[in-house]
Amino acid sequence: MQSPWEAPDFDDHEVVHFVTDAKSGLKAIIAVHSTHLGPGAGGVRFWHYQQSGDALADALRLSRGMSYKNAMAGLPLGGGKAVILADDARTKSPEMLAAYGRAVERLGGSYVTAEDVGVSVADLVAVSKVTKYVSGLPVAEGAVGGDPGPHTSYGVYLGVKAAVKRKLGRDSLDGLHIAIQGAGSVAGGLARLAAKDGARISVADIDQARAEKLAAEVGGTVVSTDAILTLEADVLAPCALGAILTEQSIAALNVPIVAGGANNQLATPEDGDRVQARGILYAPDYVINAGGIINVASEYLGDADQAGVQARIEKIPGRLDSIWDESETTGR
Amino acid sequence: MQSPWEAPDFDDHEVVHFVTDAKSGLKAIIAVHSTHLGPGAGGVRFWHYQQSGDALADALRLSRGMSYKNAMAGLPLGGGKAVILADDARTKSPEMLAAYGRAVERLGGSYVTAEDVGVSVADLVAVSKVTKYVSGLPVAEGAVGGDPGPHTSYGVYLGVKAAVKRKLGRDSLDGLHIAIQGAGSVAGGLARLAAKDGARISVADIDQARAEKLAAEVGGTVVSTDAILTLEADVLAPCALGAILTEQSIAALNVPIVAGGANNQLATPEDGDRVQARGILYAPDYVINAGGIINVASEYLGDADQAGVQARIEKIPGRLDSIWDESETTGR
Repeated sequence: MQSPWEAPDFDDHEVVHFVTDAKSGLKAIIAVHSTHLGPGAGGVRFWHYQQSGDALADALRLSRGMSYKNAMAGLPLGGGKAVILADDARTKSPEMLAAYGRAVERLGGSYVTAEDVGVSVADLVAVSKVTKYVSGLPVAEGAVGGDPGPHTSYGVYLGVKAAVKRKLGRDSLDGLHIAIQGAGSVAGGLARLAAKDGARISVADIDQARAEKLAAEVGGTVVSTDAILTLEADVLAPCALGAILTEQSIAALNVPIVAGGANNQLATPEDGDRVQARGILYAPDYVINAGGIINVASEYLGDADQAGVQARIEKIPGRLDSIWDESETTGR
Repeated sequence: MQSPWEAPDFDDHEVVHFVTDAKSGLKAIIAVHSTHLGPGAGGVRFWHYQQSGDALADALRLSRGMSYKNAMAGLPLGGGKAVILADDARTKSPEMLAAYGRAVERLGGSYVTAEDVGVSVADLVAVSKVTKYVSGLPVAEGAVGGDPGPHTSYGVYLGVKAAVKRKLGRDSLDGLHIAIQGAGSVAGGLARLAAKDGARISVADIDQARAEKLAAEVGGTVVSTDAILTLEADVLAPCALGAILTEQSIAALNVPIVAGGANNQLATPEDGDRVQARGILYAPDYVINAGGIINVASEYLGDADQAGVQARIEKIPGRLDSIWDESETTGR
């Protein structure tokens, strides 16, 4: 590979920006997959990669995912994503965030940044001091915007319910067993909403303490990160990192439904066929997890109030049903 | 190599942009080396590369060269350079130029484009329809701007004279033998100015017809592209592509002076030491060939009339003398 154009995940991305700021130590990749529908919008991830090629692959895959996600969410936004390459110690300085913000500003609005793994709302506030092309900032109570996590959770919860209705013929999650991979913000929100409906929750996280805290809160059970993917349950909800549905993991699944908030759950396109071949109902991640970007976009675009955002998120189950209908018709 | 950060020519470039436009077939790399002194300014090259890594190397080296060149020319500009990857047939369409222009526009002025190898003033006019971050456009007679070639030639001519004065103690080129590699715009301008002073011109170009035409015009001699680098002459003026001063070619040089307009003449930094070890006076390319960018920058910045541009170019010999003085003092 001599350039990102030869990277396996390159898919006619409009621009891939490699940003360096020697002074602050910033190294970042900003991938803009498409600006066809509007500015390339998507979060920035702060992550320690073993190699720069891994960071590139992440940026390429995630930005493409955002194009689909934003289009599927009916938003006037294209797809983009940024990754900041953290060092071993994951040093994150105000200077680095400022340098990142300046790089985003220099792109003149073709990329709009937001939060993602490893980036907090406070980090975004720092970034927003040097660029206006940022969304997901804290907002006054009652205003649109702020932490997208709860909105993603709400959309995933609605998507899980739609899958349960379709596959199991049940109108409620009451008495069902939901296996949740991850115990972060999106996983936590889903767990709370499902538990409120009477669902039984199993949860796993590489951060054992975080898993235990969430389980205690929702009266659930902690299982190991190995066990969660093979657990016998009604729904597996992947809400951690991506590429967890592989040839091996799919063969070992013990659920009729996979529906969760993680990005890029399928390791390869073929894994989508494998899930289907096993008769498992799968909710495409870029549709079911669009609640966060809907909220972020509505904040950025300033075109909806809180009720409007909720109405947009509540269109997610209908979109999933359309996709499942088409899948049944076409067999794909 | 997994990313441009591992490319041998990467030198803390602020941003390397990989641009694709599937519709028009555009593939371009825009490298912004530094915006420390101002917008990264430098031309766009249209070239067929065997591999994308070659295009990247070109963009990285040339953009770094522009940082030095613009700084040495005293301009409030940083360094940038773009390469458009041509196909075998070198297809160049209006759509492709427009897509390139849109990509430049999206960078919001952090890169200012201009002409370079393979790009005409007419191409730039097409580009200027979609971006204001372009310079080197045709201008009304008497106004500043337009084709930078003659200005580069004039600066190179002044630089050659300064070198001759220093090394050979001569105030004029009269009776001297100048070997010119290349017969394009910059080479042609230098040949005409030097011939007018009474110099004898030898010229070589991969385009034999072009070399013959120039030789006829200035009463000079055509030599082969192999022979030009070993010709016994007073001055070798490289005015074609870069990286022509290598360990081997330097050992075979038969001149006391190398002073020409090509970019990046030294294949490696060590080759600078090799030229010096042979007692050959070398005019650093990014200083002697700054006339074009001075003209382009003055057009873009709108801060000088034609006399002002000429005055700026006439500072080139003084800058070369300072560098040679320092080199003598430090032995480097």
